[in-house]
Amino acid sequence: MLKLYWAPNTIASATAIVLNEGNVPWEGIRVDFASGEQTKPAFHKVNPKGRVPALVTPEGVLTETGAILEYLAATEVPSLVPVDPLHAARMREVMYFLASTMHVNHAHKMRGARWADEKRSWADMTAKVPETMALSCTYIEALIAGPFLFGDHVTLADAWLYPISCWLEADGVDIADFPKLAAFRAAMASRPSVRTAHDMGMIG
Amino acid sequence: MLKLYWAPNTIASATAIVLNEGNVPWEGIRVDFASGEQTKPAFHKVNPKGRVPALVTPEGVLTETGAILEYLAATEVPSLVPVDPLHAARMREVMYFLASTMHVNHAHKMRGARWADEKRSWADMTAKVPETMALSCTYIEALIAGPFLFGDHVTLADAWLYPISCWLEADGVDIADFPKLAAFRAAMASRPSVRTAHDMGMIG
Repeated sequence: MLKLYWAPNTIASATAIVLNEGNVPWEGIRVDFASGEQTKPAFHKVNPKGRVPALVTPEGVLTETGAILEYLAATEVPSLVPVDPLHAARMREVMYFLASTMHVNHAHKMRGARWADEKRSWADMTAKVPETMALSCTYIEALIAGPFLFGDHVTLADAWLYPISCWLEADGVDIADFPKLAAFRAAMASRPSVRTAHDMGMIG
Repeated sequence: MLKLYWAPNTIASATAIVLNEGNVPWEGIRVDFASGEQTKPAFHKVNPKGRVPALVTPEGVLTETGAILEYLAATEVPSLVPVDPLHAARMREVMYFLASTMHVNHAHKMRGARWADEKRSWADMTAKVPETMALSCTYIEALIAGPFLFGDHVTLADAWLYPISCWLEADGVDIADFPKLAAFRAAMASRPSVRTAHDMGMIG
């Protein structure tokens, strides 16, 4: 059975949502970020980058949300990737934006030590998160066809955007300023795949 | 014909390398970062994120290196993506690491204003780049099968890693500390696809 290393309110829930969408059996292994378990040698044997998600497959451990989601689509849940190359590219355009811009903006709230050494720099970064996350929301808002990113059909990008949308209040963004994103979040929250992730304590 | 918006020493050259690997005809449109052309309304009509690469396809503009490379593989150069889902996932694991971690580390040298408002924070970020880029190199070094990331066969991830490897000296990293990465860079540099990108002034 696939095993997913996860921690609450991290992007690991995107992988859980995809697994659940495909009714794929999986086992969760919770990593205790409060005690810094992700920084310790035992976890570094799983993922030397010290992050979640990490997915244990029969062929080894996979890391990086985007790689994991594509692997699950290819092996278990093909319906989550559009067949048309241009539509698939539009989905991946969002996925790479989430990975390289929006999640990175969020990470500057609590993880400034990754990129600077002085506490006052970390505070400066934290203070800017409401602005950078709102800017990312503005970009996403213009893309949403509704109710999901590309209309009625859920893709890998929706599973990824949902947990990030749940960070917005804590990141100082009022989701009411982004009505399509708010409607997206509500539509996703009603799906059994997402409710199960909430019930497990993965989100919120 | 496909058109690629690019600027020198940006990640846009990864797209050029993939186009060249597939002998795909394309036209380059150079964006003048020195005068801030990427921040102006005319370019924001191409890419509202104000970044390169942006690829003009018959069906619209595509952004995000990962989405563009996958699109080109799907439509023009299928040999650059492994057929086996696990091998493809290993390739994408590197691609997402480059997008979300290694390129982001590099961006903190010159683009601190994205994530903080005070100049002293930007200086703090800049000072840490040699450390964070060396850490990223340590992770990549352990992955390289040689001469390319996954052995003798070039993939999308190699086309992406090459331009980043060319930033290392300016980022304060001595590539000699990473012999497999140095050999990778030399092997890539000898490919016609890469030499053409150099000849166009896209890289270093």
